Amino acid sequence: MNKESKILIVGLGMIGASYAEKLHASGWYVGGISARQSTVDTALKEGIIDCGTIDVTKGFVSSFDIVVFAVYPKLFVEWIEKYQDCFKSGAIITDVTGVKGAIVSKIQDMLRSDVEFIAAHPMAGRETSGISSRNPKVFEGANYIITPTGKNTQQAIDTATEIGRILGFGQISILTPEEHDEMIAFLSQLTHCIAVSLMCSKDSKHLVDYTGDSFRDLTRIANINENMWPELFMLNKEELLSQMDLFEKEFDRLKKAIASGDEATIKQMMITSTERRKLFNKK
Amino acid sequence: MNKESKILIVGLGMIGASYAEKLHASGWYVGGISARQSTVDTALKEGIIDCGTIDVTKGFVSSFDIVVFAVYPKLFVEWIEKYQDCFKSGAIITDVTGVKGAIVSKIQDMLRSDVEFIAAHPMAGRETSGISSRNPKVFEGANYIITPTGKNTQQAIDTATEIGRILGFGQISILTPEEHDEMIAFLSQLTHCIAVSLMCSKDSKHLVDYTGDSFRDLTRIANINENMWPELFMLNKEELLSQMDLFEKEFDRLKKAIASGDEATIKQMMITSTERRKLFNKK
Repeated sequence: MNKESKILIVGLGMIGASYAEKLHASGWYVGGISARQSTVDTALKEGIIDCGTIDVTKGFVSSFDIVVFAVYPKLFVEWIEKYQDCFKSGAIITDVTGVKGAIVSKIQDMLRSDVEFIAAHPMAGRETSGISSRNPKVFEGANYIITPTGKNTQQAIDTATEIGRILGFGQISILTPEEHDEMIAFLSQLTHCIAVSLMCSKDSKHLVDYTGDSFRDLTRIANINENMWPELFMLNKEELLSQMDLFEKEFDRLKKAIASGDEATIKQMMITSTERRKLFNKK
Repeated sequence: MNKESKILIVGLGMIGASYAEKLHASGWYVGGISARQSTVDTALKEGIIDCGTIDVTKGFVSSFDIVVFAVYPKLFVEWIEKYQDCFKSGAIITDVTGVKGAIVSKIQDMLRSDVEFIAAHPMAGRETSGISSRNPKVFEGANYIITPTGKNTQQAIDTATEIGRILGFGQISILTPEEHDEMIAFLSQLTHCIAVSLMCSKDSKHLVDYTGDSFRDLTRIANINENMWPELFMLNKEELLSQMDLFEKEFDRLKKAIASGDEATIKQMMITSTERRKLFNKK
């Protein structure tokens, strides 16, 4: 990757448009592809891309050295199946997909041998979607995970790292796709399942006027994109289900302790919880 | 309550000391009682009380018109049992206790007939404790609930309301003790149970470097005072257990939908969750 590298962003939603805006503002030549003309128009008008289209053509796609996929996982796979002939030979492909095990090998196995896919996950999603919610500041201080496999070259890993740096991520790490998926099932997917279940537990509108910050913080992510998340859950199903089991077991242990008045167990769980949580305070 | 009213705060922890600081700064004469001399010394040195002691004497307590109890619930009951002879005749007693059903009638029933207890709950707790964590700013925009019974006079309700106003609460509401306890079981106790169970689910220290904001927000309250909360849970046990059941049922419904690949149910739960959560956005 060098200053002459042209970067194409496929998908100009919240994350894709934030990538485009920051890369463009940092001096890179940035193209955009969106399913909607109005999104392309907005991106051009607001100066976050140099060129854009809704038509996927070899003429357009092959002018880019780096292609970042910021679309839902299934669409990503379909896009590669349908349009991979359009890539420039030697192009490096990367992504922002929230699951890796089910995606990375699949894409790498089907991809042309003269194009390389290096997977990455910017952990900076928000509960809003669409180009109007873009905000490159969400990357500042956030985590960016690269998940290479044995098929990846150092050059591609370096390119993904460089993109993470330009975007301003606080920490860039390397994990295997499997480590990534265990981590994401616990830290992100399980937490979303909890927030959704809590909101579904009762019609809580009569409680709005009395809430403190704990309920607000805990349910921020209950405002969730219902088109994207079921797909992510399905693609990481086994790992997510085992994290859900772990949580349910502990929740049930606490419930039994409360029911039987076993204050020692409640207290011990709180001590463990407090101790573990301290590590997660922002540095 | 008038500008001449002298206010005593019993318990100078995070909430009690924040009350003292704000009331004192607003021009009221404020006394403090703490179990520890070092806390009294700090409160005097930092100018948040006019006088303070660790000794509960009639001479001291009877000089106050209003007494606010900011101690754990059991201690509150014990204090009243032991020291209620010390109150000035006509004094108004209030509190900050996080449960009401198990406390309010108990205190009212045992209290001298020339002293009135009006219960209140400032919903502005924090995950830190002690006088050094005091911060009267937590009251700004927060909710303050008064839970009168048939035994309360309008004058006492007005006094509790006035205290809420001086402290700067955003909204002051009246609920029955029962309504309060259902609300608090769902919005606060259940959320703390969830956060604690999540942290207990696994030793997560290897995940610290990869976390996004969802996990941090959801587990902020997993940093919990293990001396206070088991007591609060026990005093609201039946209500808390029924809220835990509601949540567990929904969590299990979501888990089954994920296991069976029932994306329609997952999506529907997310739509409900998003819709309900919107009402909780800060005004």
